[in-house]
This record gives sequence, structure tokens and C-alpha cells, in this order.
Amino acid sequence: MRIGLLTGGGDCPGLNAAIRAVVKHGVGEYGHSIIGFRNGWKGVVEGDVLPLTRQHIRGVLDSGGTLLGTARYHPHSEDGGLDAVMATLEAERIEALICIGGDGTLHAASKVAERGVRIVAIPKTIDNDVAGTDRAIGFDTAVNIATEAIDRIHTTAESHNRVMVVEVMGRSAGWIAVNAGIAGGAEIVLAPEDPFDIDRITRYLQHRHRAHANFSIVVIAEGAVPKEGSSMTYETKVGQFGEIIAGAVSERVAREIATRTGFDTRVTVLGHVQRGGTPLPADRILGSRFGVAAVDALHEGKSEVMTALRGEEIVLVPLAEIAGKVKHVPPDLLRVANALA
Amino acid sequence: MRIGLLTGGGDCPGLNAAIRAVVKHGVGEYGHSIIGFRNGWKGVVEGDVLPLTRQHIRGVLDSGGTLLGTARYHPHSEDGGLDAVMATLEAERIEALICIGGDGTLHAASKVAERGVRIVAIPKTIDNDVAGTDRAIGFDTAVNIATEAIDRIHTTAESHNRVMVVEVMGRSAGWIAVNAGIAGGAEIVLAPEDPFDIDRITRYLQHRHRAHANFSIVVIAEGAVPKEGSSMTYETKVGQFGEIIAGAVSERVAREIATRTGFDTRVTVLGHVQRGGTPLPADRILGSRFGVAAVDALHEGKSEVMTALRGEEIVLVPLAEIAGKVKHVPPDLLRVANALA
Amino acid sequence: MRIGLLTGGGDCPGLNAAIRAVVKHGVGEYGHSIIGFRNGWKGVVEGDVLPLTRQHIRGVLDSGGTLLGTARYHPHSEDGGLDAVMATLEAERIEALICIGGDGTLHAASKVAERGVRIVAIPKTIDNDVAGTDRAIGFDTAVNIATEAIDRIHTTAESHNRVMVVEVMGRSAGWIAVNAGIAGGAEIVLAPEDPFDIDRITRYLQHRHRAHANFSIVVIAEGAVPKEGSSMTYETKVGQFGEIIAGAVSERVAREIATRTGFDTRVTVLGHVQRGGTPLPADRILGSRFGVAAVDALHEGKSEVMTALRGEEIVLVPLAEIAGKVKHVPPDLLRVANALA
Amino acid sequence: MRIGLLTGGGDCPGLNAAIRAVVKHGVGEYGHSIIGFRNGWKGVVEGDVLPLTRQHIRGVLDSGGTLLGTARYHPHSEDGGLDAVMATLEAERIEALICIGGDGTLHAASKVAERGVRIVAIPKTIDNDVAGTDRAIGFDTAVNIATEAIDRIHTTAESHNRVMVVEVMGRSAGWIAVNAGIAGGAEIVLAPEDPFDIDRITRYLQHRHRAHANFSIVVIAEGAVPKEGSSMTYETKVGQFGEIIAGAVSERVAREIATRTGFDTRVTVLGHVQRGGTPLPADRILGSRFGVAAVDALHEGKSEVMTALRGEEIVLVPLAEIAGKVKHVPPDLLRVANALA
Repeated sequence: MRIGLLTGGGDCPGLNAAIRAVVKHGVGEYGHSIIGFRNGWKGVVEGDVLPLTRQHIRGVLDSGGTLLGTARYHPHSEDGGLDAVMATLEAERIEALICIGGDGTLHAASKVAERGVRIVAIPKTIDNDVAGTDRAIGFDTAVNIATEAIDRIHTTAESHNRVMVVEVMGRSAGWIAVNAGIAGGAEIVLAPEDPFDIDRITRYLQHRHRAHANFSIVVIAEGAVPKEGSSMTYETKVGQFGEIIAGAVSERVAREIATRTGFDTRVTVLGHVQRGGTPLPADRILGSRFGVAAVDALHEGKSEVMTALRGEEIVLVPLAEIAGKVKHVPPDLLRVANALA
Repeated sequence: MRIGLLTGGGDCPGLNAAIRAVVKHGVGEYGHSIIGFRNGWKGVVEGDVLPLTRQHIRGVLDSGGTLLGTARYHPHSEDGGLDAVMATLEAERIEALICIGGDGTLHAASKVAERGVRIVAIPKTIDNDVAGTDRAIGFDTAVNIATEAIDRIHTTAESHNRVMVVEVMGRSAGWIAVNAGIAGGAEIVLAPEDPFDIDRITRYLQHRHRAHANFSIVVIAEGAVPKEGSSMTYETKVGQFGEIIAGAVSERVAREIATRTGFDTRVTVLGHVQRGGTPLPADRILGSRFGVAAVDALHEGKSEVMTALRGEEIVLVPLAEIAGKVKHVPPDLLRVANALA
Repeated sequence: MRIGLLTGGGDCPGLNAAIRAVVKHGVGEYGHSIIGFRNGWKGVVEGDVLPLTRQHIRGVLDSGGTLLGTARYHPHSEDGGLDAVMATLEAERIEALICIGGDGTLHAASKVAERGVRIVAIPKTIDNDVAGTDRAIGFDTAVNIATEAIDRIHTTAESHNRVMVVEVMGRSAGWIAVNAGIAGGAEIVLAPEDPFDIDRITRYLQHRHRAHANFSIVVIAEGAVPKEGSSMTYETKVGQFGEIIAGAVSERVAREIATRTGFDTRVTVLGHVQRGGTPLPADRILGSRFGVAAVDALHEGKSEVMTALRGEEIVLVPLAEIAGKVKHVPPDLLRVANALA
Repeated sequence: MRIGLLTGGGDCPGLNAAIRAVVKHGVGEYGHSIIGFRNGWKGVVEGDVLPLTRQHIRGVLDSGGTLLGTARYHPHSEDGGLDAVMATLEAERIEALICIGGDGTLHAASKVAERGVRIVAIPKTIDNDVAGTDRAIGFDTAVNIATEAIDRIHTTAESHNRVMVVEVMGRSAGWIAVNAGIAGGAEIVLAPEDPFDIDRITRYLQHRHRAHANFSIVVIAEGAVPKEGSSMTYETKVGQFGEIIAGAVSERVAREIATRTGFDTRVTVLGHVQRGGTPLPADRILGSRFGVAAVDALHEGKSEVMTALRGEEIVLVPLAEIAGKVKHVPPDLLRVANALA
């Protein structure tokens, strides 16, 4: 079989482990040909192919990013995009596609599948908000990076008697904020799932600093928003591509805290470091398992499914079941974040 | 309520996160008193108590080991051990116990519970072989340490054209070996679940080195054993306390490989480094969630249960259900380890 | 002898190693009493003392920050500040002072020494710009943190075909930028020592992306400035305390690059993470050696000297020799950064 | 110019940084051709060449090992070895050689230079015992790895009330042991430079455990030896190639401690992990600077010199000056290790 392979959306650690697994298992177990497309769907539209061999995947298991390159590009939103996709697949005699990506890539995969192409998807996003799976590739490493940063900021907060505000990624869901917040021992965690009340926050900080502490850590997901009707108004700042402006919400919250409490308050925006570099074992393993499972799924004739982690097992989930859904942080995990503050 | 708290068995990263969560949540949410016992069940027998306050748990979230100390000690195996346990609990007016430990500690917990003591257990073991839960505290960090070591050994193997044999922990189950083997890109992974055939191994290595590689990594769990009837005989070496002698199986396998293939073959035994040091976020979070859940369980009147991770949820599992069971690496995960070799 | 001890200025990794060494060696070898002052010179002025015992230094060797707390506070700039210092020293019967700090703290030390107080200084600054010593405490760890961040950003740059601009600390000297730039394989490094020419930079990037690469890393010290007369004007943005506004120069440079080349260009400002967390062995060792040497120097009757690293040796340098000097990155190191671009 | 390049002896982190710098600077600045030899002097003897291009050095800066491969092979000890070297150099029209290695490789370089070949050497050895330079490539990373291991073992020692013995590399000099011992806060450090007295050690441990501690860390260099006339006799165990048998001395010392004190005493032998994996920034920078300096030295007509770090500068040292010398840990550094115990 000639299997096309692409990575779309933002890059993250663990993509190369998945690519490697698709190639090793696809070629080694079944004798398939794996045809990579460069830069996600853009490469399919442009016919930018890279036939993958054992040589390409040597030494990539512990490397970040994606050896195929990636881009935020949606063929169904471009004029003639889907036609160009079909033309390339035909020209390259691709019989099936494995698409590694987040929401956008998976949505495009559904559109292409509607044209009759066999597709298996592999979820990746450091935000971990893809429905239907416990974990997406990249999340565990991102939590690790964010936690290490909080650990570092912790010692500065304590030495200087400061309130340190740390902004992490998470537009629609606060998975990184909540997990890194718990792991880093943050006093306050703000997630999109639970609009915040700035009055409660400043009262809590004042109480804490009066009672027994001289510093505090506040972790904010970039998509956090204030509670309606609360004393702070704020509208999420978005850029020209609809992306959230890094640092906007944390600067705003820090200003409120500084003004209302008088505490020395500083902001750190983690930004791009959250999505790069050596993947944690968890993401290498998840990528490897997803890659093997995707190849097996195609071999068994499956299509329009996504590989997913459920507990200790890898399962297949219909793309239709997860379309348009965002996986939010469950209330009991938010509660742990608050209980240990 | 006066709640006793102990950590038993081998230490591991994430124990302090659990202790911290029990104290913060137990005191902060319910006003309980948390009475620590030093050095596991030994401290209960000897009445060695440490009443825990906010002061004890400051700054411990990212530290390895256990601030309570630990010991491999089973009260039910000692003369009058259980009586001494009951006497201490009465003297200290302990109304319930939270026991953090592996097989041995949990077994002792059942014995004490039979005497009418309310007990909630929290599973920890870097071997990850406690039944009923996806993860035990300490496992993710151990996999990370083992993977980092394999990454390091990888570059030496390649530079020197060697076969490098790496022995990791795992007496009855090969969780660390299989996970670190996949994450580290090992060519061969030997786990207790799947007795190995030394002939197949050496044939594979010879083929690989002839075909396209000049080095190989072999990861061995300390409890790995050869297949019956195969051309290598080996009986697991145990020490005076029944523990597996570190390095025995890997030295033996390395000798066979070197003799049969002529390849320059070296052994590294990871040993104690696998169980110490800064816990990965995953173990801090798991410890925190288990600690909160254990306190909640006692509050809800539960007893003889263990906190467990199932997918993304924390649940309670009756101790009776898991007694005497070992959780083995499932075949599909072993298959991924082999598929990507 | 009763020896006062303080840490002043911004915190950094390795301070606790120095404090620990002063206490262990001062008490253990000579039987001195070590009287800590909280929050730098502020604590001396306010008489905020913490007599240090073995208990205070337990487990601090691998921790970031300073257990004494620190503040940016200059007694000689405050009304009656030096008088208050002298009053506290007398009240506490302090016979000598060990001051751990950067420029500001060392300058204050000279002012206090003029009043007849015996003082030995220990240099710390992640900027590494204290004259007279090869290394100041904190620098090696900061370079490591910055390099790890560049490594992470590298994979994203490559996967997305981007120009990534990374701003690191370094107001007057570009030690972190140059070292992390070399270690991280940056294409361009901008340091205060060598005003940059934006035309050359954009021409180089255009050439590189045309010739053989699809991404670039630009590392900028916060104190970098454009060459006079070049086509980009920029004045360093400073805050209310004279500190450089984080991100200002890198945002400006990124905008120029994006506008002139059309490349997708993104900024990451490392900020506070550079100064916190677990110290690298180099900083623990340097702190330990400086602490021992400072105690020995006082024992030998020295004063108004600073401990310094010269090659493999610890030496003493008169404070007068280094007053008002900034140690700049030498041209040959700048050249290596450029040679390997 | 056609410049030959080889890496000899044991591999270590930072070699690829040096290779990359030689290629980038040699080709980019001077237009030289860089001809690599595989597996050290063995590759020269066998004519196993790899002409190096920009492609070979892409992405290697942060990778461990050596892309050229290495071997412990001395041409002057083999029949006709030097003649074979000369034949290859002539056949490949090599005008000068850059040799990266430790004692053995440098000695071979001198022998080849005697035949009229222009040679510049670059020192590498995790043992750091090459004379004439503050640092050799690989040392800083090895200290970091050893310290991280000691940090991990520390928490286990404390949780279990144990004496933990950690064996690190260092045959003739104890640089890793002393530096990692200071950084890891070891109670006792045994180095070849200072033969140990087992009676003093056990007395000290007994005193310490009686007085205030329940655990201890003992760091031993593999080449440590007991004092003559002391109550413990021991002869260094060497293997068939004259290499020290890993674990021999630490097992022996641990047995003495356990027998004499009754403390639960365990051994960890770090072994190969000390020499592999991602190089620390310090080794990437040192490798880069040495590589640039070696190319410059050849350009300036130098020969029979070694690049060396002295303080903050890179200098050239005649090979004749350092021949047969071992750089030992200076007494004042040993003293710091003891002072902070």
C-alpha cells in the first residue's frame, strides 16, 4: 500500500516518534510505502512529497518538532484546495492517509475523507483538548517544561517576596495551566473552564501574605477570562489570524493584583519554549504507540478514525464522534488545583 | 479526626507530594490532625510519631524520597507486630490510617484493617505492578531516568560500535524496561512477561550489524528470565532478603552475546538512581490527586480501599480486589517494543 | 568571631551554596558565629537578623534563590542609611561582613568598609560582568537555561520555517547571549559590546534562507543597541527603576526583520526563568569555593577584597581594583559566535 | 589546504561541537577541505575517510558522541602502524591533521608529528587530567551527570537511613569525584591524589550518624587507593586492556564500611552514562572554541601544539610541554571537598 503521511498545525515534541513508528511498522511489518508530505496540508496541495526511508527516521526519536515540517493551512478553506489535494493523491497513487494534527488538521481530514479517501488520524496538541483521548502527543512534555519554569520562578518569588504571574498556553482549555499549576505548587490557577473573580484572588493573596507567606505563584492559561459581572472587565485579545495575543491576559491580571494589593508583581510569558525540544518519554511512547496503531488500523481496513489513549489501552475513535468537541479539564482536577493552594 | 500517615517499602519520587496533599487537604478542608509515623510500619510498631504541620510540607513538592522515612518492614511477619500496631494507634488515638506503599505495605494494611482499623491505601512503586490502577507513584519518573540513561548510552554505543546492555528495575513485571525501551529506541527489550530466547537475540543482532547498523541497545528488566528449553540456562540470583541481585542477569546475557557474536558488549546497571531525585510533574500530580482522594475517601466513611488512576479519573478500588495480584505489561505494549526494534 | 552575612541584588542559583559554605566552614573550622541579615542591605539597616545554624543550611545546596532573601537596596543612597548600618553592626557586635552580590552590593560594601568595617565580598550575577573574576555565581546556570530554551525553540523554528528571536538578560555585557548563542547554534548574536547593523542582519538572513536554510535563530541581549548611523534607530527602553524593559529591543528587531524580509518572525523573552531554580554543579562548586575562601580571607585578616576565580584558582582581588568596571565579552569570543553562524 | 580530522580514545559529549567548528570555520573562513577519518587512528591506518561537508554537521551541536566514530588504537604500538598512517596521509594528500583526543591520542599525535606531519591537537577527556589546560572537552558534562546521580541517590539515602557509595570515573586523577562530590554535598570524597584511611572514614561516619545524621554519601573515583600501612589492603583491579574494573574499589570500600559500622551500605557504579548524551553548554562552547582555534593555528603555520583553556582565554601549548604529564586535582580543591563534609 502507498500511505501518505503529514503533520499539521503547531509543532510539538513526539511528532517524530509517530512518524518513525509509521515508517518502521508500515515498511517493516507490511511492506507499505510511506510517502511524506511537507508542511502539512499545504504540501499535499502543492505536491511537495518526501518518500520516507529508514534513513530519514534514524536518530529522530528523541528530537522535537517534525521532520516533515508543518503549517497551519486548511485545504477546505482555500479555493480549489480539496481538488488540489485529490489531484496530488491521485498523481502519487496514495491509497490512504495518516494525518497527525490537532483540531484543524482533523477537521480537514474529515473533509478529505468525505471525498472517499481512507484516513486515520493521530491527535497531537500541547493543549490536550482533543476529545476522545486521554492524551494528545506533546501535552506531557509541555506540562514538564511549564513546571520546570514554575520551579525556577518559585525560588525567585521567594527570594524577592514577589507575586509571580506565569502565562502558559491553553486557549479553550486549561490543561497545561492546571497540571503545571498542581505540579509547581501554584497558589492560584486560572483556566478558561472556570472564569475568575479578581476580587477573590486579591483577597486570597492579601490573606496569605498577611498570614504566613511572603510570595505567591499565579498560573494563567492564555485563554482565561474574568467572571461576568466581576469587578474586572477584559476581552481576550486576538491577533490577525485569530490567535490569542501572548501575555495580554497575564499583564492585565498582574496590573490588577499590583494595584489592589501593592505587592511587587511580575509576569513571565512562557511562549514558544512550551512546544519545542526533546520529548519526554511519555510523548515518545505515545507517538510510537499511535504510529503503530494507525498503520494497523489501515491494514484492518479502518477509516475516518482517530487513534486514542484510554487508560492503558490504545483504541480507535470515529472522527465523527469528536468533531467540533473540546475536551475540558474536569471539575475534580480543577478542585485539586484549588485544594492544594 | 486524627489520621495516621505512613510511607512503606522502597522510596520513590512523588511520595512527598502525596504527604503534602494529605496534610494540606486534611487540615485545610476538614480540620483533621495528621499524625505521621516514621519509617513505615516500623514507626507504628515503635510509636515513632511526627505530627505533621504546614511547616513540614513547605517546599517538599519537588523533592524526592519521603520526609517520613521508610523501611521494608511487615508487622504481620513479626512476633506481636500487629498487637504493637494496635497499641500505638490506641495510644495516639488514631481513628484512621492512610498507607502509602507497594505490595508489602498494602498487604500489611489489609492485615491491620482486619483488626477493625479504617484504612485507605495509596499505591506507589516504580515497578508499576500494583493491580487496579493505571499508574503507581514513582513510575513515570523512573521511566524518565531510565530513558535519559539510555539516551546517553546510545551515543557511546554508536561512537564505539558496541552492544550496550542496560539493566533496569522490574522484578515481576517489565514496565520500566518496556517503556524506557520504546522511549529510548532500544533494539531489544527483555521483560519477565516474555521469557527470552538467547538464540533469537544473537541471530537478530548479527543480522542487524551485518545489514545496516554498527551498534545496538539491549534493555533488560532485572527479573527477565530465559525461555525454558532454550540454549541458555539461568536462575534468578536473589540476595539474603529475597531481593534480586543487581546486574546478575545482564552480566550473564552480555557474556552470551559477546561470546556468540564477538561484538564488543558492555553492561550498565542503573540501580538506585532510578528511585531518587526530583519527581516528574506526572508523579507530583498523581501524588497530589491520590492524597486529596484518600482524605476525601476517609471523610466519606470508606475503608479498605486504594486510590487508583483509571484513564483521567481517580477512583477507589477495594483492597480485596487487588490482593496478591501483579499487574503485567499487556501484550500489545510488548508488541510495540518489538515492532519498533 | 561574629561574622555578618548578606545576599544583595537579584537572586540567582548558587547563592545558597555560598551561604552553606560560609556557615559550615566558618563554624566547623574556626568556631565563628555567622549572623545572617535578611533581604540584603535592607536587613542590615532594619536590624533584621537570622543567626545561622547547621539546621538552616540542611538540604539547600541544590536549591535556587537565597535562604536569606534579597533586595535591591543601597544604604548609601538612603538618608542615614550608612549610619543605620553601623548601628546594627554595633548592636549585633558584628566584627566582619561577608557580602554576596553584584555591582550594587559591592559598591555599598566599599562605602561601609570606608567606615572601618572589615568586609570580604563574593561576586554573583547571572550577567557575569563583574570585573576581576572569570565567573560570578549564577552565570553558568543562566547560560544553561538560556541554551535549553534555544534548543527547544530551534525545533519549532525548523518545523515552521521561522525566524525566532530570543531575548536573554545582559544589560551592559552580552555574556549570556554570546555563550548561549554559541552553545545553541544561533545564526546571529547581538550583544551590547558590538552595536548591530540591521541591514547586514537582514541581508545575511535573506542570503541564508535563499541558499540552504529555512529557519534562523537570533539571540539578543536585552542591552543590545543598533550601530550609530545605521538604518534602524532605537533607544533602550528603561523602567522607573532604571531597569531595561524586557522584550523592547527584541520586539523592535523582530519587526524590522519581518518587514524587510517577509519571513515569519517570532519573539520569545526568557525573563525571570533565567535566574531561578536548581543551580548547575558549576555554580554550586563556585559558591562553595567562594564561601570557604571568604571565611579563610577574614581569618587571615584580609579586608576590602573580593573572592575571584582565575583559571583553576581562587584568588583575592582588592575591591578598589574593580570598582566601577564592567567586564565585557572579549572580541575573540564574539568572533567565535560569528564564525560559527 | 586539505586538513585531516579524527577523534580518538573514549567518546564524550562536546566532540561534535569541535568537529562542527573545524568544518564551519575551516571551510567558511579559509576554504579548506576537511577530511574526516573514521574511528580514530584506526581509520587513518585503514584509509577509512569521510570528507566532511556542511550536511554532516547539521544538527550535531547538541548531540553526544562523535559523528566520526572513535577507537582506542595506537598506531605507534602496531607493527607498521606509523608507516600506514603516512601512506594514507600521502594518498589523501592531507597537509595537516587536527587530532581530538586524550593522553593516548595526543601521544600518537607526537609520534606522527615526528615524521614531519603538521598537527594541532584538541584535548578531550571526561577525566580532565590532560596537562596544560583548565578544561578538556567532556569534563563539565560528566560532572553534571555524576552530580545529578548523587542528587537522586541523596533522597534515597535519607529516606532509608543508608550509607550510599557512588563510584565515578577517574583513573589517575579525581576531578569528577571531587567536583561532583562538592556539588552533590558528599560527606566523603576519595580521589587517587589522596590515598584514603579506612579507619578515619568509618570513625567519621560513626561520629556523624551518632551526632546528627542518619545517612551519608561517599563518592569514590575508580582509581582511589588506600593509604599504605592502613588497616585495609587493596590493589586496583585491572582488566585485560589495563582498564580499571568498574565497581571493584567501591564494592570493597562498601564492604569495609558495612562490616565495621553495621550501617546499611549500598553501591552505585555510574559507568558509561557519564560519557554520553547531550553536552552541557560549557562543552559545546569549549568544543566550538577549540575547533576554531585549531583551524586558526594551522592557518598561522603552527604545529605540535594543543589548544588549551586558560582562564577565559584559548591559548596554544606545545605538545612537548605536556607529554607524559597528568594534571592532578590541586590540594585546595581537595580541601574544599573535605571542609564542607
